[in-house]
Amino acid sequence: MAPIKNGRVLYNEFATGFPIPGKNTVYDTSQTIDLDTVPLNGGVLLKVLYLSVDPYLRFKMRDPKVEKNIPQFKLGEPIESSGVGIVLRSENPVYKAGDHIYIILCCRAHLHYIVWSADKQSILLENKENIPWSLYIGVAGLPGQTAYCGWKKFAKFNKGDTFFITTAAGPVGATVVQLAKADGLRVIASAGSKSKVDFVKSLGADVVFNYKETDTREVLAKEGPINLYWDHVGGNITDAVLENAARGLTIIVCGSISSYNNPSPMYRHNLIFERDVTIYGFMVTTIFVPYLADFYNEIPKAIASGKLKYREQITQGLENFGQVLFDVQKGLNEGKAVIQVAKDT
Amino acid sequence: MAPIKNGRVLYNEFATGFPIPGKNTVYDTSQTIDLDTVPLNGGVLLKVLYLSVDPYLRFKMRDPKVEKNIPQFKLGEPIESSGVGIVLRSENPVYKAGDHIYIILCCRAHLHYIVWSADKQSILLENKENIPWSLYIGVAGLPGQTAYCGWKKFAKFNKGDTFFITTAAGPVGATVVQLAKADGLRVIASAGSKSKVDFVKSLGADVVFNYKETDTREVLAKEGPINLYWDHVGGNITDAVLENAARGLTIIVCGSISSYNNPSPMYRHNLIFERDVTIYGFMVTTIFVPYLADFYNEIPKAIASGKLKYREQITQGLENFGQVLFDVQKGLNEGKAVIQVAKDT
Repeated sequence: MAPIKNGRVLYNEFATGFPIPGKNTVYDTSQTIDLDTVPLNGGVLLKVLYLSVDPYLRFKMRDPKVEKNIPQFKLGEPIESSGVGIVLRSENPVYKAGDHIYIILCCRAHLHYIVWSADKQSILLENKENIPWSLYIGVAGLPGQTAYCGWKKFAKFNKGDTFFITTAAGPVGATVVQLAKADGLRVIASAGSKSKVDFVKSLGADVVFNYKETDTREVLAKEGPINLYWDHVGGNITDAVLENAARGLTIIVCGSISSYNNPSPMYRHNLIFERDVTIYGFMVTTIFVPYLADFYNEIPKAIASGKLKYREQITQGLENFGQVLFDVQKGLNEGKAVIQVAKDT
Repeated sequence: MAPIKNGRVLYNEFATGFPIPGKNTVYDTSQTIDLDTVPLNGGVLLKVLYLSVDPYLRFKMRDPKVEKNIPQFKLGEPIESSGVGIVLRSENPVYKAGDHIYIILCCRAHLHYIVWSADKQSILLENKENIPWSLYIGVAGLPGQTAYCGWKKFAKFNKGDTFFITTAAGPVGATVVQLAKADGLRVIASAGSKSKVDFVKSLGADVVFNYKETDTREVLAKEGPINLYWDHVGGNITDAVLENAARGLTIIVCGSISSYNNPSPMYRHNLIFERDVTIYGFMVTTIFVPYLADFYNEIPKAIASGKLKYREQITQGLENFGQVLFDVQKGLNEGKAVIQVAKDT
């Protein structure tokens, strides 16, 4: 078979504001690959099916002069993300042709085809429940794990406590809303469009509002005080929560959208001690190991049965990655943003 | 005996910047008291000996329109603080004339003489070790308890970890430095004058610098990463620590000087999750009960033996309270600021 084009999404320039497709990221088609003859060196040839587009990708695109010690994408090389791929050929005894693999974060997955050394973090997907493969990068992948593991490890509450969460329609937020309702909390949730608000209402959240139309501070003043806050945002919104904190508030921080594109200051440091606040920040890959077995036992089943709800928005074509990344930063996506790179077979 | 003057420090006007004596606080001598005949109504007549002037007092002097839900001093009434007093007369069987009592926070102690209902938080001081009574509002009082209880409850570390603390010459800071050294940590500490720096060095801290002359960020970049941070400041200094955080940093927040007078923003919310940071904010009176017995068993002994070091700066005269409060906010005091209201007898 003749070599075929192997398109790639490259990291082209660090971002200071929102990441612009064609500027900060570029789609490059200069490389080819011969699927039959490319040397595997003991590894695996993967055809990428789905790629994840997550808010946190932006934080690996920051100015390295300002952001020392922060892992960044390498300029001129493919962006690293998570994805689901299918094995075309394998020289690794663990994987065989036809296997589906979830490759996590560290893999340079933004190509159509990758020769993968199989030495990095990955999970062989059995998918006995026969849910769509794309979900394994969403509600059944890292975003779902962020929700599940973060909740199990850090959420402290009494039944009936008031819980607040932002970006509640996303794959992390929506899963957390459902875990919180299952645990008997009163859930206040915000999202950025009518359709998202409707979706979060359908999950059983008690108070849901569009933060673009209604002031978060006013809602919290009325519906608070807040006992538990799942923080994706930081800055002014975290200040609003601190101002409406119950004594002993717990904050679980797993994102900081306010810091990525337009750093937004937080002023209410004083309230951290005045209200006996505890704050847990975490990266899912640091904490998830002890929870993964339970996660893969419970979550795909809950999805298949319809018990665990989610939304995803699949965009066809690797060349559209840059635009989807921009949209995710702007909150324009409706549901978990996924790039379908190739068909499921 | 004829009525005598009973001077009072009144809360006169909320502060927006540093609290100005004569403006935000005033010393008033319009009241008198007859020590022999004043009705006790089942309570106690106390002669106040020492009053504590602490940084946190400023946060009870904020604009009530901006700071809803925050306990503030009452305008036109005596400021509430902590102090040591001696019982002159008592109708309460728990206390007898000559007893020394530590009255905590809630008491309107800024008078020479107070009729005290004895229903508020207080501790009868035995002082078997015969240490100066003034220390019972400093290293052997709430500031020492803040250090001791906060450290016991929240400090998580491995031997040899790098620990950073600001305002290290104060009664909280200096006690924490000594606890950290006793626990085998490498201690980086900052203070605001040469004399303070010398004192903190004498406590065994490994790296001590004057933050007015040396940039905190540069010191932390050189001496970090930081595993544990005791936070009295917030704002830009907390940002500097987050930027130099080891993965898994723990921050213990028991003050926020940067927020009191000139709110200073914090921008690095993102690093809370990127570095798996845990933050514990606390008010000592919320957590201290289980630790108090050990505290009073250990600390006065350690002071009497010379093992636990401290500095205090005693100013004579209740009329000087306002100026000392201002000085404490500016960091001009050398050691724990105490007002001696009357002689020890």
